[in-house]
Amino acid sequence: MARDLSALFDPKSVAVVGASDDPAKYGHSVAAQALRAPDRRPVHLVNRRGGTVLGRKAATSLFEIGEPVDLVVISVPGPGFEAAVDDALACGARAIVGITAGFAETGPAGLARQQAVAARVREAGAVLVGPNCLGIADNTTELYLASDSFAPGGIALLSQSGNLALELQIRCAPHGLGFSRFVSLGNQADVTLVDLVEDCARHDATSAIGVYAEDFGDGRAFARAAAAAGKPVVLLTAGRGTASARSAQSHTGALTSSSDVVAAACRDAGVQLVTTPREMTVVLAALHSNSRGRGVRTAVLTDGGGHGVIAANAAEASGLDVPELTDTTQEQLKELLWEQSAVGNPVDLAGMGEQNPLSYATTVGGLLAADEVDTVLLTGYFGGYAASGGGLGGGGAALGAGEAQAAHEIVSRWRANPKPLVVQSMYPQSPSCRTLAEAGIPVFAATEDAARALAATTVRPAGGPPGVAPLPPAAPPLADAGYYGIRSLLGAAGVPFPASREITDEHQLLAAADAFPGPYVLKALHVLHKSDAGGVALRLPDKAALLAAFREMDARLGAAAYSVEAMADLSDGVELIVGVNRDPRFGPVAMVGLGGILTETFHDVAFSLAPVPAERAAALLRSLRTAALLSGVRGRPAVDIAAAATVIERITTVAAAHPEIAELEVNPLLVRPDGVLALDARAVLA
Amino acid sequence: MARDLSALFDPKSVAVVGASDDPAKYGHSVAAQALRAPDRRPVHLVNRRGGTVLGRKAATSLFEIGEPVDLVVISVPGPGFEAAVDDALACGARAIVGITAGFAETGPAGLARQQAVAARVREAGAVLVGPNCLGIADNTTELYLASDSFAPGGIALLSQSGNLALELQIRCAPHGLGFSRFVSLGNQADVTLVDLVEDCARHDATSAIGVYAEDFGDGRAFARAAAAAGKPVVLLTAGRGTASARSAQSHTGALTSSSDVVAAACRDAGVQLVTTPREMTVVLAALHSNSRGRGVRTAVLTDGGGHGVIAANAAEASGLDVPELTDTTQEQLKELLWEQSAVGNPVDLAGMGEQNPLSYATTVGGLLAADEVDTVLLTGYFGGYAASGGGLGGGGAALGAGEAQAAHEIVSRWRANPKPLVVQSMYPQSPSCRTLAEAGIPVFAATEDAARALAATTVRPAGGPPGVAPLPPAAPPLADAGYYGIRSLLGAAGVPFPASREITDEHQLLAAADAFPGPYVLKALHVLHKSDAGGVALRLPDKAALLAAFREMDARLGAAAYSVEAMADLSDGVELIVGVNRDPRFGPVAMVGLGGILTETFHDVAFSLAPVPAERAAALLRSLRTAALLSGVRGRPAVDIAAAATVIERITTVAAAHPEIAELEVNPLLVRPDGVLALDARAVLA
Repeated sequence: MARDLSALFDPKSVAVVGASDDPAKYGHSVAAQALRAPDRRPVHLVNRRGGTVLGRKAATSLFEIGEPVDLVVISVPGPGFEAAVDDALACGARAIVGITAGFAETGPAGLARQQAVAARVREAGAVLVGPNCLGIADNTTELYLASDSFAPGGIALLSQSGNLALELQIRCAPHGLGFSRFVSLGNQADVTLVDLVEDCARHDATSAIGVYAEDFGDGRAFARAAAAAGKPVVLLTAGRGTASARSAQSHTGALTSSSDVVAAACRDAGVQLVTTPREMTVVLAALHSNSRGRGVRTAVLTDGGGHGVIAANAAEASGLDVPELTDTTQEQLKELLWEQSAVGNPVDLAGMGEQNPLSYATTVGGLLAADEVDTVLLTGYFGGYAASGGGLGGGGAALGAGEAQAAHEIVSRWRANPKPLVVQSMYPQSPSCRTLAEAGIPVFAATEDAARALAATTVRPAGGPPGVAPLPPAAPPLADAGYYGIRSLLGAAGVPFPASREITDEHQLLAAADAFPGPYVLKALHVLHKSDAGGVALRLPDKAALLAAFREMDARLGAAAYSVEAMADLSDGVELIVGVNRDPRFGPVAMVGLGGILTETFHDVAFSLAPVPAERAAALLRSLRTAALLSGVRGRPAVDIAAAATVIERITTVAAAHPEIAELEVNPLLVRPDGVLALDARAVLA
Repeated sequence: MARDLSALFDPKSVAVVGASDDPAKYGHSVAAQALRAPDRRPVHLVNRRGGTVLGRKAATSLFEIGEPVDLVVISVPGPGFEAAVDDALACGARAIVGITAGFAETGPAGLARQQAVAARVREAGAVLVGPNCLGIADNTTELYLASDSFAPGGIALLSQSGNLALELQIRCAPHGLGFSRFVSLGNQADVTLVDLVEDCARHDATSAIGVYAEDFGDGRAFARAAAAAGKPVVLLTAGRGTASARSAQSHTGALTSSSDVVAAACRDAGVQLVTTPREMTVVLAALHSNSRGRGVRTAVLTDGGGHGVIAANAAEASGLDVPELTDTTQEQLKELLWEQSAVGNPVDLAGMGEQNPLSYATTVGGLLAADEVDTVLLTGYFGGYAASGGGLGGGGAALGAGEAQAAHEIVSRWRANPKPLVVQSMYPQSPSCRTLAEAGIPVFAATEDAARALAATTVRPAGGPPGVAPLPPAAPPLADAGYYGIRSLLGAAGVPFPASREITDEHQLLAAADAFPGPYVLKALHVLHKSDAGGVALRLPDKAALLAAFREMDARLGAAAYSVEAMADLSDGVELIVGVNRDPRFGPVAMVGLGGILTETFHDVAFSLAPVPAERAAALLRSLRTAALLSGVRGRPAVDIAAAATVIERITTVAAAHPEIAELEVNPLLVRPDGVLALDARAVLA
């Protein structure tokens, strides 16, 4: 059930408590903004000393207003916050925006205060944004309750940082990108990122949702909401390195998840993950106007070889392909161009643009129309004929006019064939480039930005189509988290293990050896890091070797129990690792990768929210560098990826159904050409 | 011996042949530029139809000028080029700039014409830039012979693309970066990139050399010249992917080297390799003003938590460290800041900058003075108090004045402690940021640019200090490139192999087995891909097993000869691959990496120009992901990296001394805790 945030984004009336005439106070900026649309709804200013604020009479309290107030912004010194909230609720507020700081971000006492006040708000049936936030704005309802104004447009910006929101606003402007809503998340005591994503998903005037977050709250719910949003969600967050994690913690007291986990959740949810405000702007510019591309085959078009080479390189570095064009397309381009033009891809007008700017348009048109072309990147000088009156090779006013005409013609060709098209220009502010940008064709000054933008429209991350699998119902808690407890839990779920017996003495050992043929494996149980401790003996050919190994190991380790197992045939097999950890924000998260000694060396692993459906598990395995081993290299046979994927689904489903398991690991999971065997497993309870 | 290019960069007189009044002709732009400094030296315009050009009387030929001309620019239609060159030489020209196109870039016939005319120029003791170039400029001698003017400054720009040079010029301007020289490389028929790097290295007014090249000519000479330049060399080139390589070939007919080879040469030579004009500008801005840093420990300073998190992340992604500051430094910062400021790193003023902008300066000063800080990154709002009259939190004119003072104070603090310092600002054009930039502190709008700039001053690539090892003298050509020929070549150079004998029949086989103890290895010789073909039998425990294996293999393969070898002890060993290939541009290039089946899967390899000195070989090995295996993981002992490095020096020296060897490969090179053994080797002759 999504929360009703109508009083937050379209209140019938507004009061600013803490409104001030002192420009150094935040209550001044918010009040000034609130008054920008005086005819839309009543706006009341409250200052406990009364008097006039911004030329208006201020009420000394909410009660003095004499009528109910729908939304109350509270920007008062810390100790007065709770009383102001209570007043607001008493005066009928259905929504509160808490600017006041000094709560969860200061420690446990502040957190307790925050939880108490949030509970009172919820009890009253109201909603609270913040505290410790910088306000909200909704351009579609003329609601301005932050200290800055945001140009109108289609982006809903939900941010845990005011300055980053400001930078995004500055960066978006040249691209003609504006904002439907802005919400400063603050401490998310009541209204959370998830609530806001859900509401913005329903908000028709919002075409894309931009998020800067350090604390995801219920990360899994965020992933689910983003996956269901039906519009692009772009997430700016850090946490890749140690310093940024350290800083995010001190900045908001956030519980941070590892960047692997955040990246996996974004991939599952179809969220575009970016690491800088500049990258976020580039991706928003790309997704705002371009249709999503059907593929990565990119034609690069330039009027100078150097830019073509550099752009092709940047495109390939961003995950795009720049394949040679088909003979048919090359022939068609040759008809349009002159002899020295290159038509292979990059397509290089080689000076023809300078003779006849319309050749840019006819070539863009030809490329957009080509079946083998999914996206087009125009790079280099376009825009310069009008901007500078001619290029390195001279030129003049006629060229500028021709270029202006070419810009309009490019727009028509693109509308006729609306594949993703982006432009890199040395003159992005030129009239010709403005023509393109205003029509919705993103123009960038930097080659790498143009390539990144195209990639945002088309490059699909590994792991298959987006989707967040639901958590299975919780199973009865695990009684025995020992080796045999885990084996039987997983075995019951359909994870195959080799024949084995738990034993405690020589008599049981010999009986076990009679139960199945060798070679055998002997493992000491309940020993930490049993491999490193010498608690595993492999390839014991017969009963005598097994007995000898038992005597030696038991004398050395004196373990309470041992496991005798049939030694699996390791030839032609690949050892995988499958693990599930419980993240404080995102819940159970699965890791699959190359197992054994090389796991730590190569860290060739992929992550996904658990449970992992078999189809995604297979896609993850195919995304590993190890994938070459799985499909057979140097004469080795391919292994059974489908069987491995099915078992990964089973393992991750078991882990997800047991919230009491903090870690579950099957390592190695042996994958052979004819099937899968779990050779070892362990669990750690929370 | 470096070439004398004085007539090129500081001629006594200049003539432009093909000067024109038609603004669409290149001869028009060059002539107009040439006339910008009429008092520096005589400038003659030549047009075969005579008349006036740009208001001056044009000579109909060079002879009509009636006095010797030192430098001649030739911008005439293709067929007239050779005659114009001959005229120029006859008139005493010591330098020629060939604008005219239609030579090597059009195919073999054009190449032959180009070689012939270049030979005549050299015979006359003159120098030729081009043909197919866009001119040259030297701001230090008021020589303007390109169609565009370049703002004066310290960068010598050597470019194979006119439009990319133009983009670099546009991008450098906001950073106050200008150019000492510009040379359009063209086809490098006579004067090459190497000549120009050597000349610019000697040119006092040049502080850094920027190169865009697709064709490196003698790539190894380029690397040597760059390593010896004594000033930063920044190389923009592509070739990472297939499309850019394809395009570079068609653009200039260049022989392209793989990006691995170019990257290795740059690393060896200490050249900063960049992939876009934007990145080049960032690196030039960083190296222009900042001293080279002594290390990567970076303090991030911000006035808003979000920017601190994002910048710390970007810094770490660029190879910098953002370590927690020492208690001592934290205590010192606490004295300067208020309670809510974070002092761990990132250091977050947390609003104090808005109250007192000077706190930016005192904190920058404190960080620059801290022993544990190598570099400082200031990020976020700084610049905004003056630019916008206050931030999200309001502000006013007083804040702007305080910020201006803080900017000057930051400059003084930096001059007192000139460690690398860069700034990311949402307001890079603000007066405060201009104060910083004009003092030499680079300011960027984008976080990733600031991080990249700092990294350029401090992050050292793997492989040890720069240096290009000289090629050894050529050895007598190899008589026998078969297995035993290569073994004896390498063995003589001190590469250890296991005991072995070449045999052709059972009698020799048994004699070999008597010569050294088992277990044995049997290899079929002169069989392509002998492992895949079943031509290698390992772990043959005794003479009987050896004989059986021989009979089976000989019946199957019927090889002309076999090798019997002592089987090496593989336990505790790591198998490396060491290969040397001959690149058309860079000569012998070494590859070292993880050997065996995993080579292709993980491509965990490192490259360097051969020969590779042992010290660099060890650094390369330590740069591999495999390095963890070499130094021992999970209880495995460390292997003898020093011994491996010595053998790598020997192998790569042998390959470098034999230009007739196109490929030489030792795979595997077994490295054990107690030494090294080459277990197989092969060579391909050119």
